[in-house]
Amino acid sequence: MFNRVAFIGIGLIGSSIARVMRRDNLASTIIACARTDETLDAAKRLNIADETTKDIAEAVRDADLVMICTPVSTYGAIAQAMAPVLKPGAIVTDVGSVKESAVTAVMPHLPEGVHFVPGHPIAGTENSGPEAGFETLFEGRWFLITPPPGTDQTAIDKIAALWKQAGSQIDYLEPAHHDQVLAITSHLPHLIAYTIVGTATDLEDQIKSEVVKYSASGFRDFTRIAASDPVMWRDIFIANRDAVLEMLGRLSEDLAGLQRAIRVGDGEKLERLFRRTREIRRGVVEAGQHIPPSPDDTDPKS
Amino acid sequence: MFNRVAFIGIGLIGSSIARVMRRDNLASTIIACARTDETLDAAKRLNIADETTKDIAEAVRDADLVMICTPVSTYGAIAQAMAPVLKPGAIVTDVGSVKESAVTAVMPHLPEGVHFVPGHPIAGTENSGPEAGFETLFEGRWFLITPPPGTDQTAIDKIAALWKQAGSQIDYLEPAHHDQVLAITSHLPHLIAYTIVGTATDLEDQIKSEVVKYSASGFRDFTRIAASDPVMWRDIFIANRDAVLEMLGRLSEDLAGLQRAIRVGDGEKLERLFRRTREIRRGVVEAGQHIPPSPDDTDPKS
Repeated sequence: MFNRVAFIGIGLIGSSIARVMRRDNLASTIIACARTDETLDAAKRLNIADETTKDIAEAVRDADLVMICTPVSTYGAIAQAMAPVLKPGAIVTDVGSVKESAVTAVMPHLPEGVHFVPGHPIAGTENSGPEAGFETLFEGRWFLITPPPGTDQTAIDKIAALWKQAGSQIDYLEPAHHDQVLAITSHLPHLIAYTIVGTATDLEDQIKSEVVKYSASGFRDFTRIAASDPVMWRDIFIANRDAVLEMLGRLSEDLAGLQRAIRVGDGEKLERLFRRTREIRRGVVEAGQHIPPSPDDTDPKS
Repeated sequence: MFNRVAFIGIGLIGSSIARVMRRDNLASTIIACARTDETLDAAKRLNIADETTKDIAEAVRDADLVMICTPVSTYGAIAQAMAPVLKPGAIVTDVGSVKESAVTAVMPHLPEGVHFVPGHPIAGTENSGPEAGFETLFEGRWFLITPPPGTDQTAIDKIAALWKQAGSQIDYLEPAHHDQVLAITSHLPHLIAYTIVGTATDLEDQIKSEVVKYSASGFRDFTRIAASDPVMWRDIFIANRDAVLEMLGRLSEDLAGLQRAIRVGDGEKLERLFRRTREIRRGVVEAGQHIPPSPDDTDPKS
């Protein structure tokens, strides 16, 4: 499918798609570029990279495909560093969780004849780093492509074919619309989980140890979400500020209403809301998106 | 272990502990009491009840053990209905999520010589009803006993022995302290999950369908929590109002701080919080409480 593929960043997502490329022989040569020896050594040890380097220009020279798999705040500098050496016809793609800022950061730097196809796999776990990846991570999950107007169709189709090979279903969204949807499905849940686990962290020591001990009562799921990569998430909230603040505003209004219902003992209002939310859950289950991924799952939809 | 055991309510929790009693022959006769034929028929069909009735007094007559497994708002009326016929030496226990209100609702009605041992299994799923139960639900989970001062020690030990048989570890807490801890580990996460899924429910139809479709990005876990039993949770928030409002107040302050950090682009503050929350997750994993229960798990800690 590709001759030379360069990974800029090879953590959970990057190493998982690299594993798929290895398994299915989709690349003749895989080059891993990262900032630390630790990451590069792991990529070698896991046999998902033929060559490793810390130099972005060296990594992308002669590459047919460049996969940007780093936190979104790094995109501008990466695009700038690779621009002078990218070969004509090369495809640059990414896996970041915010798409409008990705387009704005990368596009202005790319030379004529290089194709940028922004993408986002709706898959992940709370673990980070190359060791955390696994080749079934994307099976049964969505891969969203958010091409700016005028993107080369052949390049789009190649990226779609790659992710189909990883087991994903492909969908196409406008970058700004993608960011709105993800603000509520992903960014807001992570923000809330981080907040509530943070609130627990500030409790007095004795009650904090009990909170950990009895976490199976619901808190557990929040600690899982709040164990996600700190730098990646810092960047997401800053890059998708407007949509996140908009959704957070709506949530705060709704929370204030519930707070009042509890204070005045309005059981009817509480029960009415608690019944309505079941409808959404049914939709999630019917869409087959209700099972969290795990390295042991061969079919996450089963 | 017991001769006649009466279940008042036999949903997810009640039917799960009834299954354990059947499996290990802990009761000669199990009587199920519920309000609907549907529930009572299910209890018969599942072979977890020898006798069924809709009459509370009939159910508890001659019982050695009465298990109250209904939403907490029903406790007062149930205690009142059973008081005249409870036999001396009988033990009354419960599985409710709020303990101070349980003590206040039940104790004043019970005759001299009947022992109330309030308890709370830290285990559950988002599913409701007798069909949703399974006998491994409590394995590796905590069972908290919150006896009021002066509770008969033999009665406490019998309840502890029952739940140990179900695979639980036993711990003892003051009722009010229990309610504070659970406010943050359980009640607040459920409130937030209900709120955020409710916020999504109010979105315009097109974006709502996309939210369901792409729920695997974090929202999924919230929809699972928000699919929990509406009446049970309505009662919990009203019964534990003060502790829930106190914890919600702390959360709101922390959320306002994060909102501001996003608005002004304070990445350092965000990253600092996101790093701190990992410490709590490590504690949860070390405590073996990180795996959600499932009917297929024989060992939820594995």
